[in-house]
Amino acid sequence: MTVAGRDAVARADVILTDRLVADGVLAWARPDAEIIDVGKEPHGSATPQEKINRLLVEHALAGREVVRLKGGDSFVFGRGGEEVLACAEASVPVAVIPGVSSSTAVPAIAGIPVTHRGLSQGFTVISGHVPPDHPDSSLDFPALARSGTTLVILMGVRTLPQLTAALIDAGMRPTCPAAVIADGATSDQRVVSGTLADIAGRAEAEAIRPPAITVIGEVVRVWRTESKGEASQSLRQR
Amino acid sequence: MTVAGRDAVARADVILTDRLVADGVLAWARPDAEIIDVGKEPHGSATPQEKINRLLVEHALAGREVVRLKGGDSFVFGRGGEEVLACAEASVPVAVIPGVSSSTAVPAIAGIPVTHRGLSQGFTVISGHVPPDHPDSSLDFPALARSGTTLVILMGVRTLPQLTAALIDAGMRPTCPAAVIADGATSDQRVVSGTLADIAGRAEAEAIRPPAITVIGEVVRVWRTESKGEASQSLRQR
Repeated sequence: MTVAGRDAVARADVILTDRLVADGVLAWARPDAEIIDVGKEPHGSATPQEKINRLLVEHALAGREVVRLKGGDSFVFGRGGEEVLACAEASVPVAVIPGVSSSTAVPAIAGIPVTHRGLSQGFTVISGHVPPDHPDSSLDFPALARSGTTLVILMGVRTLPQLTAALIDAGMRPTCPAAVIADGATSDQRVVSGTLADIAGRAEAEAIRPPAITVIGEVVRVWRTESKGEASQSLRQR
Repeated sequence: MTVAGRDAVARADVILTDRLVADGVLAWARPDAEIIDVGKEPHGSATPQEKINRLLVEHALAGREVVRLKGGDSFVFGRGGEEVLACAEASVPVAVIPGVSSSTAVPAIAGIPVTHRGLSQGFTVISGHVPPDHPDSSLDFPALARSGTTLVILMGVRTLPQLTAALIDAGMRPTCPAAVIADGATSDQRVVSGTLADIAGRAEAEAIRPPAITVIGEVVRVWRTESKGEASQSLRQR
């Protein structure tokens, strides 16, 4: 959580909060602040985006200071852009307070840098929400397999077998190091490591459940070096 | 700045700080903390990484609580991994406190979400430090051009003409929206927008200097819609 985010929570008249918001964050809110949980509806499904947009605008137009609180970063698969547009349409001024994205933070805390000199000059973050062959997928897996960047997959526990198979089909090296980090940045964090070819099977064998983040790339070697106490001189000097 | 980062700065005996650290962050340090600026050497060049690693280990082994303070996220082109490995080698325990990466935060503050439903299912962050044809480049530009993700280029002001030409050569649509954000997240922030074909020329015409971040992809349309007050209904509903 950022200092700016905490200050905004402490000031807010109304807070629209979400699942994945860390415990304790709402403790910073004013006692009289109205907290609306839009992470789920009473019957368990997600609150429709249109309803969230409407709540944001309605409360703001009523003259209240509204905070839209999300875990991670609101603009990394967080629909922050849609909510900003809804406010802009209603002439509601918006200040964006960026957050710490799980896409880089969870690997870092687990000991995997998404970039590392000599190993990776970039990283690609994708949603694994839909499998590669799904009509809604706009990702080019042959390109992802060849880009030369570390691949970070969010929301891809269920689709991991298809995602890794698509990357191998596209020519990515099956022995490329890979790791799945479950419950990252919590005391329950677990890391399962393997290769592109076997990581899906290993994650299944370890009964990995969402939320989990998969990292595919040579940078996973940094974690192995560090966590196993192996001589790391060669890796550092690359 | 995160709450956890601020707390660490406030506790530290020794702080190794960097350029790109926001003004005011060091004001949270204890009055008796030792501040070492490793962002530059007296003669203006960068402090060698080996020297930074050595300072971290030496101060820690002397029993002092050491904070390595960087702007952005230490593991996104920040060499955090190298410093963690150096500490691991010396059996110095390290706690990683992830930061807010400019790669997603600067576009978000400027009004460009790196992902947006219907426009982008992922994003790729690369360093533009070396041009595409440089022997040190390990990026595959034809693949980057086709991945279907938003492309975010850090440290790429000088090389922008070569980078954009390589993407066009690789088949990326020359009319793809693009924007350069200079001095992002500061009161001096400037956004120059255009297309993949003309963004390098526009940035040069506007005398854009580092630090600046380039975003290439359909998501730049969100910024245009928002900032120009155009009807955004069609964009939101995609």
